[in-house]
Amino acid sequence: MNILDSVKYDANGLIPAIAQDDATGDILMMAWMNRESLEETVRTKKGVYWSRSRRSLWRKGEESGHVQDVKSIFLDCDADVILLRVNQIGGAACHTGHRSCFYREVSPDGNDLIERGKILFDPAAV
Amino acid sequence: MNILDSVKYDANGLIPAIAQDDATGDILMMAWMNRESLEETVRTKKGVYWSRSRRSLWRKGEESGHVQDVKSIFLDCDADVILLRVNQIGGAACHTGHRSCFYREVSPDGNDLIERGKILFDPAAV
Repeated sequence: MNILDSVKYDANGLIPAIAQDDATGDILMMAWMNRESLEETVRTKKGVYWSRSRRSLWRKGEESGHVQDVKSIFLDCDADVILLRVNQIGGAACHTGHRSCFYREVSPDGNDLIERGKILFDPAAV
Repeated sequence: MNILDSVKYDANGLIPAIAQDDATGDILMMAWMNRESLEETVRTKKGVYWSRSRRSLWRKGEESGHVQDVKSIFLDCDADVILLRVNQIGGAACHTGHRSCFYREVSPDGNDLIERGKILFDPAAV
């Protein structure tokens, strides 16, 4: 059975996909895939998602060159979350220029967001 | 502004939450939180989720003792995904007894799922 038929898509036909740096284990981002983007990811070994805001296929790095080389793909126990282990070309996965989209830490009392990690590129220049 | 007001819940009032092993960087699971579970997670520093199947608060490990001690909490750039860095008591986060829910790797051709990682406990005994 192909992976495309094994995964459980939600009511919108989407499944969450986590991208993790294959070398460091850092979690880079979480985005969404539809069947078409998952098929293309498996076939091309590049991170391809579904942009919910643009309602279109999102080949990550297509314009910037900051593509994700997919090293391995995992499926969770409930078959409703995908994990990609990737080599993030350019180093930064986040559109803000941060290595990871998870660059804001919640303060212990829950009242503040503390910025972590440095900016790797100027988003305006990409 | 409190984190509870900063995050973007989806149409069902939920936000995805990734649990990552704080020591090893392994991704353990992805589950969902509502505002109440996020509030309790921030306050108690234990992993508390929302069970979509049971439609109730899910205090992870409440019965098994396999709780998640939350070391830090991160929010992504779009404020619509939570990342918990945790110490998983008992070692296994998955109800199957695996350390991680992502214990099945997709074969390169997309036609098979290959089991990775060993079983840490007998699910029937918990």
